[in-house]
Amino acid sequence: GLVDTYVGSQKYSGDSAASSIVGAGGMTTSWWGFSGTEDLGDGLQANFKLTSFFRSNNGAIGRFDGNETMFSRDAHVGLSGAFGAISVGRDLAPNFLPSILFNPFGDSFQFSPLIMHMDVPVFNASNWANTTAGDTGWSNELMYTTPDFSGLKANLHYQFGGIAGQTGKNNIGANVLYFHGPLALTAFYQRVDINNPLPGEVGNVQQATDGEGPFAPSQKAWFVGGSYDLNFAKLFATYQQTTNDGIDWKDKTLQLGTSIPFGHGAILASWAGTKRTGTDISAPLGESSIKRNTATVGYDYNLSKRTDVYANYMYDKITDENSGGSVGVGIRHRF
Amino acid sequence: GLVDTYVGSQKYSGDSAASSIVGAGGMTTSWWGFSGTEDLGDGLQANFKLTSFFRSNNGAIGRFDGNETMFSRDAHVGLSGAFGAISVGRDLAPNFLPSILFNPFGDSFQFSPLIMHMDVPVFNASNWANTTAGDTGWSNELMYTTPDFSGLKANLHYQFGGIAGQTGKNNIGANVLYFHGPLALTAFYQRVDINNPLPGEVGNVQQATDGEGPFAPSQKAWFVGGSYDLNFAKLFATYQQTTNDGIDWKDKTLQLGTSIPFGHGAILASWAGTKRTGTDISAPLGESSIKRNTATVGYDYNLSKRTDVYANYMYDKITDENSGGSVGVGIRHRF
Amino acid sequence: GLVDTYVGSQKYSGDSAASSIVGAGGMTTSWWGFSGTEDLGDGLQANFKLTSFFRSNNGAIGRFDGNETMFSRDAHVGLSGAFGAISVGRDLAPNFLPSILFNPFGDSFQFSPLIMHMDVPVFNASNWANTTAGDTGWSNELMYTTPDFSGLKANLHYQFGGIAGQTGKNNIGANVLYFHGPLALTAFYQRVDINNPLPGEVGNVQQATDGEGPFAPSQKAWFVGGSYDLNFAKLFATYQQTTNDGIDWKDKTLQLGTSIPFGHGAILASWAGTKRTGTDISAPLGESSIKRNTATVGYDYNLSKRTDVYANYMYDKITDENSGGSVGVGIRHRF
Repeated sequence: GLVDTYVGSQKYSGDSAASSIVGAGGMTTSWWGFSGTEDLGDGLQANFKLTSFFRSNNGAIGRFDGNETMFSRDAHVGLSGAFGAISVGRDLAPNFLPSILFNPFGDSFQFSPLIMHMDVPVFNASNWANTTAGDTGWSNELMYTTPDFSGLKANLHYQFGGIAGQTGKNNIGANVLYFHGPLALTAFYQRVDINNPLPGEVGNVQQATDGEGPFAPSQKAWFVGGSYDLNFAKLFATYQQTTNDGIDWKDKTLQLGTSIPFGHGAILASWAGTKRTGTDISAPLGESSIKRNTATVGYDYNLSKRTDVYANYMYDKITDENSGGSVGVGIRHRF
Repeated sequence: GLVDTYVGSQKYSGDSAASSIVGAGGMTTSWWGFSGTEDLGDGLQANFKLTSFFRSNNGAIGRFDGNETMFSRDAHVGLSGAFGAISVGRDLAPNFLPSILFNPFGDSFQFSPLIMHMDVPVFNASNWANTTAGDTGWSNELMYTTPDFSGLKANLHYQFGGIAGQTGKNNIGANVLYFHGPLALTAFYQRVDINNPLPGEVGNVQQATDGEGPFAPSQKAWFVGGSYDLNFAKLFATYQQTTNDGIDWKDKTLQLGTSIPFGHGAILASWAGTKRTGTDISAPLGESSIKRNTATVGYDYNLSKRTDVYANYMYDKITDENSGGSVGVGIRHRF
Repeated sequence: GLVDTYVGSQKYSGDSAASSIVGAGGMTTSWWGFSGTEDLGDGLQANFKLTSFFRSNNGAIGRFDGNETMFSRDAHVGLSGAFGAISVGRDLAPNFLPSILFNPFGDSFQFSPLIMHMDVPVFNASNWANTTAGDTGWSNELMYTTPDFSGLKANLHYQFGGIAGQTGKNNIGANVLYFHGPLALTAFYQRVDINNPLPGEVGNVQQATDGEGPFAPSQKAWFVGGSYDLNFAKLFATYQQTTNDGIDWKDKTLQLGTSIPFGHGAILASWAGTKRTGTDISAPLGESSIKRNTATVGYDYNLSKRTDVYANYMYDKITDENSGGSVGVGIRHRF
């Protein structure tokens, strides 16, 4: 498991004022759980993972209140061998690994500009809808991972709908990851019909956070990314486009970042910009195009292999909204 | 713990169409938890068990949504010694061991015909009410287990009501289990006044799944079963009757089954038939008698002592309803 | 972890009748969880605790139904060293250690008179509001513990409000604990603006259990206590006052207790008396002053270091209400 908690001040673009908070998951979403591997002979293995997110500031289960399941991080079992690996249950979505491995703030749902834009709805005046539908983990999923071909690996993802009379509804996607010396490359594609956690009905891919905005029955997303390690600095770049069926709403997100080793840690910096276009985006002044710019700088210092402390500052600005500025000083401990 | 997940198609009698699903607990309901024993000297031991069901397809806690507690599988502590064992908390109901040990599909709440009839309500046009009220585990229970007398053991179960002004409401029951060479015999009796999980009010033993059907304040159930191991095949037979107070509704269930060792596994087959009679059974065409027939065949193959894979097919038919047919191919892993 | 379950009869003052129950936490609230310490060198340590209350009679998570989080006992991470210790997350409230260490029934939320008065609302005709607002654990807390100065230690507690537009709302407090030979002394002060678990809105300190009584936006509490071990008996005494802002409601609680070693255990006895005054206390007959007297006697017998059994009787009387009498015979097992 892992516990990551910080003290700071939070103001997203659209907030009228900053609030002093104890926050959870400043660098990594806190979790606990079980996993195991059993050797079955002939190179075959049985694997399972059962892991659970929690909010380390108040002890609540899950990443947020609502339709979150107990083991929303992982709940899968499967077999692996020379053929690759197959798993069934709740597991990663196609978008997850490409998004977290190719930005310097990893899976920080509080400070990574890329993750903020892709995955975190903002419940304030800005009513920001995250660009990427269907969650970063999929339930009812059958997932196949290829063997490693000289650093190249691919994952195929299929989420069963599982509701009678909704047989056409399911999620599908794939990603590739390539690691070769200092260079890494990635791409994913996904088509999402089903939200996770399920919002009651199957097949409403929510694109507005107030529950009153336009709903798309389906969303398509594609993404490419790369990183290069120059030793004195690692560089990151990603680009994503999402298109929503049935409504006029399109998002394009560019992210650039760097990680610079310094002392027993690293200086981290990343910027993400999203251009949102379409007649259904519900912009405050009726525009058919708005922008969001988010940039974070931070320093992450390792006290040990298992424990680090960090300080982050994030600037956030959405068209027509107040700008935001958040800081956090925290500790992350693996157990 | 244990994780058991399958991919398949599900259509119960009464469903209008099949749906493709990832399902949880194809052979055994998935669970995790803790247990322990402490030696107190003089043959006395302190024991506790704290175990939790979960749905391995999406990571949700419990067997179903609703009034399920976190540790709904076990939450008890007690003492054991020469006098037998006493435990207090949430523990087995009288019906549980006799029902799962005397049918070849054990505690499969997805594919065992006997368990389907006894314990699983069906939320479709058939509106099937499970025959056996009060759950397979009882909360607020005091349970006494006798010592083993040459293979014969009995359990006495008492569930406290625990609500002021409802002092007459409680559950009570007993079972016996006898194992002698290839032969095993069992019986249970229980009188149920209190549902588990508690549906708000004490003492409403729900006998209709739509919340609008007739309610019985109390239910009596008795059951006998036996099995015989012929080595090339093990045979199972059980018979149960339930009677509901205050309404005219009676269920009789016969189950026959066999388990035939084959390769590193076994071929499993079981049939259960329930005859439901009474003027309150709310049959679609107003009959005072309906039948349900469910039959399952499967093959369970052991990859190791801890891991097996299986394939099951279940046929299901309730009077006046569409017939059903479900298949599942899955993996069960103990950890 | 720990599991503590009892069988008994429960009647609080204000109940019309006793009910037979299986109860949870007769001596200590049951819990499970994880904790760990990592040595970082130079006397510095990283620590975390992640622990969860549960009700051992039915397996439900938390101490009660409602806004309880999964890890409501502890969810914190921090550093300790020569400077003392700092932790962040959900941790103890200032009132907790002084209240449980200076009464003979410790943290029994079922039988300790002091804890009953301070922390347990009674949902019956008496509509007893617990004297002490803000819970025994605080979420979103930053906590500093001093080093041990010859038996003297202090804890400083600060709970962030964390809601935009409510920046003035937070909880603050401190306690001191002094242990020297047979003598122990304690005191705490706290000012509470925020309930835990949060009741939706920040800053409503609920002072009446029916949700219709008067609400105070803030509460101040102070408390002193001492104990002295005479070897043949340990004596306990505590005194607390709470004042609620915005309403006329004040509570004064005196507690006296003793623990007398006997056999492999101890005889325990404690009395708490609370005088509640003010025009807003909603007394049944319109009085501006009521009293509650609660007294418990018990015997706690150790079967081992990890396991004990106990029998308690509690008398309870609130002005104008039926008197109550509760008994419990139980087992507590640490794991």
